[in-house]
Amino acid sequence: MWVRLPLAIQFICDTMSCMKRSELFTKTFKNVSGEETSRNAQLLLRAGYIHKELAGVYTYLPLGLKVLENIKKIIREEMNAVGGQEALMTTLQNKELWETTNRWDSKKMDIWFKTDLAAGGQLGLAPTHEEPITAMMTQHIASYKDLPRYVYQFQTKFRNELRAKSGVMRTREFLMKDMYSFSKDKAQHEEFYEKTIKAYHKVYERLGIGDITYKTFASGGVFSKYSHEFQTICPAGEDVVYMNKDHSLVFNEEVFTDDILAEFGAKKTDFAPEKAAEVGNIFSLGFKYAEPLGLEYSTKEDAKKTVYMGCYGIGVSRLMGVMVEIFADEKGLVWADNVAPFQVYLVGIGDVDKEVVELYDELTKKGVEVLFDDRADARTGEKMADADLLGVPYRVVVSEKSLAEGKVELKKRTGSTPQLLTKSQLFDKMKVRC
Amino acid sequence: MWVRLPLAIQFICDTMSCMKRSELFTKTFKNVSGEETSRNAQLLLRAGYIHKELAGVYTYLPLGLKVLENIKKIIREEMNAVGGQEALMTTLQNKELWETTNRWDSKKMDIWFKTDLAAGGQLGLAPTHEEPITAMMTQHIASYKDLPRYVYQFQTKFRNELRAKSGVMRTREFLMKDMYSFSKDKAQHEEFYEKTIKAYHKVYERLGIGDITYKTFASGGVFSKYSHEFQTICPAGEDVVYMNKDHSLVFNEEVFTDDILAEFGAKKTDFAPEKAAEVGNIFSLGFKYAEPLGLEYSTKEDAKKTVYMGCYGIGVSRLMGVMVEIFADEKGLVWADNVAPFQVYLVGIGDVDKEVVELYDELTKKGVEVLFDDRADARTGEKMADADLLGVPYRVVVSEKSLAEGKVELKKRTGSTPQLLTKSQLFDKMKVRC
Repeated sequence: MWVRLPLAIQFICDTMSCMKRSELFTKTFKNVSGEETSRNAQLLLRAGYIHKELAGVYTYLPLGLKVLENIKKIIREEMNAVGGQEALMTTLQNKELWETTNRWDSKKMDIWFKTDLAAGGQLGLAPTHEEPITAMMTQHIASYKDLPRYVYQFQTKFRNELRAKSGVMRTREFLMKDMYSFSKDKAQHEEFYEKTIKAYHKVYERLGIGDITYKTFASGGVFSKYSHEFQTICPAGEDVVYMNKDHSLVFNEEVFTDDILAEFGAKKTDFAPEKAAEVGNIFSLGFKYAEPLGLEYSTKEDAKKTVYMGCYGIGVSRLMGVMVEIFADEKGLVWADNVAPFQVYLVGIGDVDKEVVELYDELTKKGVEVLFDDRADARTGEKMADADLLGVPYRVVVSEKSLAEGKVELKKRTGSTPQLLTKSQLFDKMKVRC
Repeated sequence: MWVRLPLAIQFICDTMSCMKRSELFTKTFKNVSGEETSRNAQLLLRAGYIHKELAGVYTYLPLGLKVLENIKKIIREEMNAVGGQEALMTTLQNKELWETTNRWDSKKMDIWFKTDLAAGGQLGLAPTHEEPITAMMTQHIASYKDLPRYVYQFQTKFRNELRAKSGVMRTREFLMKDMYSFSKDKAQHEEFYEKTIKAYHKVYERLGIGDITYKTFASGGVFSKYSHEFQTICPAGEDVVYMNKDHSLVFNEEVFTDDILAEFGAKKTDFAPEKAAEVGNIFSLGFKYAEPLGLEYSTKEDAKKTVYMGCYGIGVSRLMGVMVEIFADEKGLVWADNVAPFQVYLVGIGDVDKEVVELYDELTKKGVEVLFDDRADARTGEKMADADLLGVPYRVVVSEKSLAEGKVELKKRTGSTPQLLTKSQLFDKMKVRC
């Protein structure tokens, strides 16, 4: 389909999509403080993607925020595709709601941050949102005609962890996508649950970790024998999963017992342990929250029934950390094409100012997202090192030598050999991200 | 410019851009709880744009979130246009930083929410971000070559207000755009300050409140005699401003004194009071935060100088409330074209199912954002009332009568007379938002 774009987005790269390095406010660093032991935080700090405010509390700088937004975009598209509707719930939480479900007491939920209201009373900072969304939906669900419903949000969550560790993979303040489903009964719930599993696989696929991310069996709850997690095989992961040879069955450690395996016709010796990082979890909640909070609907026959719920989480900032751990190499970050903050890191060597600026403008006009290292006071070696450290998928170098052949040099961040290409060959290789 | 769009955005309206009312999870309400006295919150609650969690704490439902995102988009474009770079700072705040500037003590800043860290120590929930950004920039500003810099974010802020009032205009948890500028000296700062004033006027212009929003003189600080606010004339506003006849001089109440007026060659009798709502404030901070937090740079001559700062706020959720107060009428909400959650509210009357679905699909494919009221069990009167209550700029009605003339009916939310148009006339009138 060909459409005429309105003027405002013709030059998509006027702003943050394309950028000159001399204007980007963040610097890169050779070293970071010794107290930061996780590889993902070390690299993200060195590359100027994040800033550490406190242990387990990180600011996202422009490059880091772009990665987060790229991840969100993929998740959002897949949640919309299964019928999710986006909302934005609150951080401050009403104590009474959580008392109703017996989750206010810090003995029941030990990761609460609580705070005092000046007007009197206590509030919590949301570690999750089952209670408020269940209570809210009592106003929007009345009849069987109002079901099923799927609501999600991207929201900052707070967990008062005793120890922060693993960089951005386990923090006290983090970005989550959480979706909640509201169904008539178990059958309607399960249909959506299966659909969401497929949507989750699509998300990981698009993030470039589809082939190493597995749905696992994890401990269940009141309404289902098992919950499910999505675990990405990753040496820096905090979990251990047990996989059989063809990876058709993967179990979290807590359910890897003889009894449970017997249910699946399997035995322990068929499985090998792997370190893994949890990148998603989904639960059949059943009536666990709907019952105490009174979320009911009228059936066709005008009987009252309790809504059957599910919840579906993905840790967005955690995913960013996991992707660093998996893809980074000894030179620095490596981003999948779909999430990288820029597609091209552009460098000029020698007396090529005019030509490199021209190429920057041409790529920009084509909608390719370019970070142009135009720093006058940086040596070529520094620029090349930063191209690697920042992990942008393609490096394009314009040099006197390449220009003598009428070409520019293209190197993939993950490749070792640069290619000499004409500009038109280069443009053909560059996909415009949407 | 004609470009080939990638497959993924061809049907831009597959998801939340176009929607069937039967699928939208939010309902509308005839009445809201009597404790909600502000008109903006009453209407936003009735129309299903927001949900009240606590006094002064509101969830944004899909329609409300779309309005917020539309407002953010406009602000973001204008901040990028003056060179702003977007980041995302944290809610949890490091006590030590705020002690350095003497703003931790609740006697100095009485709106803090504070919370205890399980690992020991106390944290704050950010009511603003001068301290953390100043401290952070010590890592990214070293030399005069690193200046000026402009950093902004959209972030949820927390204020422990004794009383919540005025609906979403004054809340305990709210969305702000805050930008911070870092300049070499006062002259460089003032150049940007003036540029930002122009950018702010553009924002209000695009939001449809440009003609009733004024830059006012407000009380200053250590480094400038005055700060400036942007005040929108609004009967529900909490402030009073004093304007002269041609509106060339507008003063906040706190600086409306004989002495100050004399400086401007004016006298009190030239001014009339007006109720107004603050929709932006900008400050010259000078060295106020940079000095105690050690934000310095090296000059060309290798001398150390303190960075000169400014800050620039816009309350995003507050703006939403102000726009409701200004534009709403007795029938409900009225949104400016640029911020409305949808452009068209589509209704079919009588036996026109096939034709109205066809029109929905056609509008959708053209990229017009449509909310199609396809509810089988709602009467026409209810649909018309909801079209008004939701405040979508255009209502399109397909009826047997209009079809008999080969036409459809278009009515502006703010107009009284519907027009009969052919489909192609209708399409010509509908602009595609970007």
